[in-house]
Amino acid sequence: MLNAEIIAIGSEMLTPFRTDTNSLWLTERLNSMGIDVKLKTVVGDDEARLEEVVRDSINRTEIVISTGGLGPTEDDITRKIFARVLKRRLILHDAILEKIRARFARRNVPMPEINARQALVMEGAQILENNNGTAPGMLIQEGKCTIVLLPGPPREMKPMFDAAVAPVLKRRTGDMLIVRRCLSIFGLTESRTDELAAPIYTKFQNPVTTILFKDGQIELHLTARAQHESEAEKLLDELAGQLDVALGEYIFSRRDETLGEVVGDLLRLNHYTLATAESCTGGLLAGRITDVPGSSEYFLEGVVTYSNEAKINILGVPKKMIEDHGAVSEEVATAMAAGIRKHANSTFGIGITGIAGPTGGSAEKPVGLVYIALADDTQATARKFVFPGDRQFIRTLSVNAALDMVRHRIK
Amino acid sequence: MLNAEIIAIGSEMLTPFRTDTNSLWLTERLNSMGIDVKLKTVVGDDEARLEEVVRDSINRTEIVISTGGLGPTEDDITRKIFARVLKRRLILHDAILEKIRARFARRNVPMPEINARQALVMEGAQILENNNGTAPGMLIQEGKCTIVLLPGPPREMKPMFDAAVAPVLKRRTGDMLIVRRCLSIFGLTESRTDELAAPIYTKFQNPVTTILFKDGQIELHLTARAQHESEAEKLLDELAGQLDVALGEYIFSRRDETLGEVVGDLLRLNHYTLATAESCTGGLLAGRITDVPGSSEYFLEGVVTYSNEAKINILGVPKKMIEDHGAVSEEVATAMAAGIRKHANSTFGIGITGIAGPTGGSAEKPVGLVYIALADDTQATARKFVFPGDRQFIRTLSVNAALDMVRHRIK
Repeated sequence: MLNAEIIAIGSEMLTPFRTDTNSLWLTERLNSMGIDVKLKTVVGDDEARLEEVVRDSINRTEIVISTGGLGPTEDDITRKIFARVLKRRLILHDAILEKIRARFARRNVPMPEINARQALVMEGAQILENNNGTAPGMLIQEGKCTIVLLPGPPREMKPMFDAAVAPVLKRRTGDMLIVRRCLSIFGLTESRTDELAAPIYTKFQNPVTTILFKDGQIELHLTARAQHESEAEKLLDELAGQLDVALGEYIFSRRDETLGEVVGDLLRLNHYTLATAESCTGGLLAGRITDVPGSSEYFLEGVVTYSNEAKINILGVPKKMIEDHGAVSEEVATAMAAGIRKHANSTFGIGITGIAGPTGGSAEKPVGLVYIALADDTQATARKFVFPGDRQFIRTLSVNAALDMVRHRIK
Repeated sequence: MLNAEIIAIGSEMLTPFRTDTNSLWLTERLNSMGIDVKLKTVVGDDEARLEEVVRDSINRTEIVISTGGLGPTEDDITRKIFARVLKRRLILHDAILEKIRARFARRNVPMPEINARQALVMEGAQILENNNGTAPGMLIQEGKCTIVLLPGPPREMKPMFDAAVAPVLKRRTGDMLIVRRCLSIFGLTESRTDELAAPIYTKFQNPVTTILFKDGQIELHLTARAQHESEAEKLLDELAGQLDVALGEYIFSRRDETLGEVVGDLLRLNHYTLATAESCTGGLLAGRITDVPGSSEYFLEGVVTYSNEAKINILGVPKKMIEDHGAVSEEVATAMAAGIRKHANSTFGIGITGIAGPTGGSAEKPVGLVYIALADDTQATARKFVFPGDRQFIRTLSVNAALDMVRHRIK
């Protein structure tokens, strides 16, 4: 497996406002050729640091790709620093200079003299034509390392990579390609997932497994390398099959769907309908369900009953029940679920009531306490959760848990 | 000016799917203390590369901050590699181990044994408490370099930085400081904002102004440098005052509040209450309003009336009105707003109906067409919008526009 590093050059990516996104696109392209990205660097117009980064990356990596810093101004230092590290001269390339001049002439603008700098190319470099801008790219073979200098603007960088760089790299990688699969998990902690999954995935060198934790959900990313797609899929099937045995009930998607999409598909396929009554999640559950295009087929209505009056009037929660057990209680969650189901005449009703914080908690009913109930036409049952984290996280976990309860009920 | 480098550790950020965003937030915080970010690295579970990166950055930089890789699993290598480079031992810290165990116990989950790894701390490190997760951070002074290890999840990383790291770094930075101000704008395009604002802000070298466009809102970030905060604030006041004259009515916040917070404050201060009836936004407006802690003071109830039946039954929208004008019409939006206001007995009612797509549009009623109505006890008026973009963007813009209508009405 070949390794690559990406160096993004430009001070704007060291501000709070702008991030390097070229590397995501490049990573996708490189991965699909079977090349792994091992490190990414963002550096500005700091010559000493860039020099050190370039030197280190060339020493340890088979493919080094830089983006940016090929412009005409003083702080575009890519050419200079790579030439210094590689001990190669920069030579003014007449044909490129002519092309740059012609480009300006076509726009009826005289070429500013500083643009001549963009016609400087490194001794022995293959020139990568730029059909969408002035700065040409360069490809240099230095020992075992292939070095590629690309311009920063995506609309210049991308076509140049596809036209001139990809064919060269493909000759280095041979036929290997990468196929990924994502198993999405809900209902386990990260460490519990690893305890169950590690004994399985560590037996495999190929596919490689990465665990991601996001918004209370866990993703297992499986990455297989093979010469043909079918072969990679077979490797993935084998690992995924074993993980399925260990984690099956917690896996809600094997193809990168959201929980909202999965639940939506289950409802639609079974001709079921859904209605929601939310308190602490304040509409987020309905919002997540209706994120999915076509959700109007199965989502009938939602209510946000923040006040006790609304719980009583819309959902028919008995006033005495709220007085006896409190608005945040198993009883009220159950009554909310049954109430909205009856109100909407839907297959299922969900009721959520809890304490999202930051205030409102007590020793008996702490911040994070959430009751979620699911009702159908025969019964309504509630589950109690105590979620960690801040207001936003508690609300997000509550929405996930509610969707997962619907998923389990239908399955 | 002190220099910092940020190292983001985690293989997921070397995939095509996930990028490092922690560094943007950290950069903002560091800049505000007068610290410049000179280099950012993203590295996975590659021990040799991480070791080289850590060694280089410590040698050339005053402040090195890492995020991520402090989890309990095998590929969380941050502790190990920093300890190796710094030639310090890792010691099991009993009090932290107890804290982690207690955290699991509170959730009625036994602590998986691998989590014990998170209680390993480096000799001589200052421990940074994690109130939102299990992994503590560490702060180490090594020669002239301040090294900070932070967890990867933003909701753990951010409070830890503000509580324990910022005060230490401030002692190092001395006099020059940076103060920022954010003017948040809604209701103008980016180019129109720049037409109005550029003649003003280009006259100023200090503060510097950056325009950001996000989710249909525009932010003008003003950054002033000075030796004292009062001096910086004075510079900001002068520029902000001139921008106020040009953009005043479109500026909804001068201190980085969300539109939901601004509207919430206006409602609370005036003892007004609000209720919402949503169709195409499917609960997102209620979700945004209830994002604000304490919103139960003014938000009475919300309904998501996706189906025509729900519009008729809950909101009293006449069936014939829907037949005559269609569910997406000025008339229905107005009836929804008036209906929910009456139902909730609130000061204001909002009704939203529209076509978020991707399907359901027609020549007459295209995707992006949204009617938003605002009702009080004397009248209900609707506005027609045609929003650009995809389903998600149309829904987001609709929520923003609805909140802005409430803001303008109360002001």
